[in-house]
Amino acid sequence: MADLRFSFSAGPAALPSPVRERIREDFAGWDGGRTSILEVSQWNPRLLDTFAKVETDLREILTVPDDYAVLFLHGGASNQFAMVPMNMLGDGGRADYLHTGLWSGKAVQEARRYGQVNVAASTAGTEFRSVPAQRELALDTTAHYVHYTPVETAHGVQFDYTPETGDVPLVADATAALLATPLDIGSHGVVYASTQKNLGVVGMTVVIVRRDLIGHAAPFTPTTFDYAVHQRTSSRFTTPPVFAWYVTGLVLDWVRDQGGQPAMIERSRRRAEALYSTIDASAMFTAPVDSTSRAWTNVVFTLSDANLTEIFLKEAEEEGLADLRGHSAVGGIRASLYLGMPEAGAHALGAFLTDFEARHG
Amino acid sequence: MADLRFSFSAGPAALPSPVRERIREDFAGWDGGRTSILEVSQWNPRLLDTFAKVETDLREILTVPDDYAVLFLHGGASNQFAMVPMNMLGDGGRADYLHTGLWSGKAVQEARRYGQVNVAASTAGTEFRSVPAQRELALDTTAHYVHYTPVETAHGVQFDYTPETGDVPLVADATAALLATPLDIGSHGVVYASTQKNLGVVGMTVVIVRRDLIGHAAPFTPTTFDYAVHQRTSSRFTTPPVFAWYVTGLVLDWVRDQGGQPAMIERSRRRAEALYSTIDASAMFTAPVDSTSRAWTNVVFTLSDANLTEIFLKEAEEEGLADLRGHSAVGGIRASLYLGMPEAGAHALGAFLTDFEARHG
Repeated sequence: MADLRFSFSAGPAALPSPVRERIREDFAGWDGGRTSILEVSQWNPRLLDTFAKVETDLREILTVPDDYAVLFLHGGASNQFAMVPMNMLGDGGRADYLHTGLWSGKAVQEARRYGQVNVAASTAGTEFRSVPAQRELALDTTAHYVHYTPVETAHGVQFDYTPETGDVPLVADATAALLATPLDIGSHGVVYASTQKNLGVVGMTVVIVRRDLIGHAAPFTPTTFDYAVHQRTSSRFTTPPVFAWYVTGLVLDWVRDQGGQPAMIERSRRRAEALYSTIDASAMFTAPVDSTSRAWTNVVFTLSDANLTEIFLKEAEEEGLADLRGHSAVGGIRASLYLGMPEAGAHALGAFLTDFEARHG
Repeated sequence: MADLRFSFSAGPAALPSPVRERIREDFAGWDGGRTSILEVSQWNPRLLDTFAKVETDLREILTVPDDYAVLFLHGGASNQFAMVPMNMLGDGGRADYLHTGLWSGKAVQEARRYGQVNVAASTAGTEFRSVPAQRELALDTTAHYVHYTPVETAHGVQFDYTPETGDVPLVADATAALLATPLDIGSHGVVYASTQKNLGVVGMTVVIVRRDLIGHAAPFTPTTFDYAVHQRTSSRFTTPPVFAWYVTGLVLDWVRDQGGQPAMIERSRRRAEALYSTIDASAMFTAPVDSTSRAWTNVVFTLSDANLTEIFLKEAEEEGLADLRGHSAVGGIRASLYLGMPEAGAHALGAFLTDFEARHG
């Protein structure tokens, strides 16, 4: 492959290049180069300051209300597919799930093992081409919570509204959404996001949870899956995911430098718009998702001649546009545009689409 | 504090300095510096080759028999305290546990939530100053497994033999033991070790498990806690702990360069011997653990005058000998001597002990 220009990897995703540089500098220079952030004791005062600052910054940048805890947990969002019902269903309660793509489907499957799951809306019948409207949600007012996935990474679907669930806590798998799309923490009971998309590197999931929802774990919940344990220990019940926590801090420093969450969201919208408008203007490429439900961070599209897909991927790689293959469950092309993607990357891909169509159309 | 000379951190532990250098080089140079190992897709061929090589190397260096799977899982060993009973007790079976310190005690507590636990031996009554002898183990021949902790990090206790459990699978929390003490994989049903001590950085646990013991998870086991899921997906059911997996590979490269496991074990024994012999020759310092049960990777000792402990820690820091405070559950002093610790570190600490006693004795 030619020199990499832009990675459209769905995850681990590209870091903002200033963050990559900061890691390089810190890695060479921590304590005069005699050690590194990977090796200091979990009680190191500088490390503890780092952890505390990340939480403060996250609370400020995301406007997290005081009655929410912020937890920094090992592992990916798939752990939350079990942790949410384990912590919120008691022993066999009921929950509503909105099924809008691959990942919310996985969340449904896992939750079924811990309680009664009502799929309050599903767009499976229309191949996940849109989000259900509020009036289409068959919500149970006695449910313990409503779970949804604001952005579906594989199918490229995004909620353009926050579901209204009354007094029932709303739970969001915001892995692909947080910081890149509008999301009001205070409208949710729980917001969780693995950090490998917008917030840093693989290995950590941030869980923002209203404090009154903590402390109700089912008896069979592993101790490391109990929100109450992590709240009580400031996410240091075990040695925490030190490196991922630190990188998230660097990402948040960069976000603030760039103008905070509003600037991130606006940039994310523009990146997506640039690419979708090229696709819509083309006769060769098709974005299957309805225009109001298209994900900003995951632009999914197909070629009118499926035989050209492999040629497209090969030529893109040769142009330094990497990792554009669609998720194996969906096929086609997917361009992931997370926080680390400069607008120039979306424009470069758009230009490549236009050029590819001129040559092969 | 003065310039760091040696870190005795119990975890995250110091990396071998050539490993630290390799990370620095790779981090600057991966794909011409345009990206980093933190950002490549989990399907990147170079990354997949790295993952495969780490498993091959681990199998070779530890002599892992073919009928064992090697899993690379997110999170620390505390997850295994739940995963072992969830995967091995069915729904409410029986297991034997040997209670020899803080960590095996935690394993007992967690296992009690998933089945019947028989503490087949406990040294709690003698403040964990030794391991129980084989003849003292009240083993149940119908137990699903026997769990023990070859090296207890907080109390500094080490088994000087492998418990004989007949047909009952033996399960080892080898976090502090693996590669640094003799441990025959084939004598065990399961050996697990978080990588933050001897094997690299925090965020991953290696689980080596006999294949016939996989596939029996209790129904309430989270999917990410089911050994069968990870075996089937080559530990890539979710995006794996990429960075920790890669660092473990660098550690194994270094281990091979140094002469493999036998050289590591011999060096570990010598480091410990140097320090324990200084302690035993002193009138000021006492190692409370019986001489045959002393851990090589965690040298625990006290000062005859407890008022000197804080002065000792402060002066040690000033000499660049860092992180010697004992575990909060035990107190006193603890020197962790994991793979990254050069023999010179143990000698430097020994010399400091002698000097400290001369000045304060």
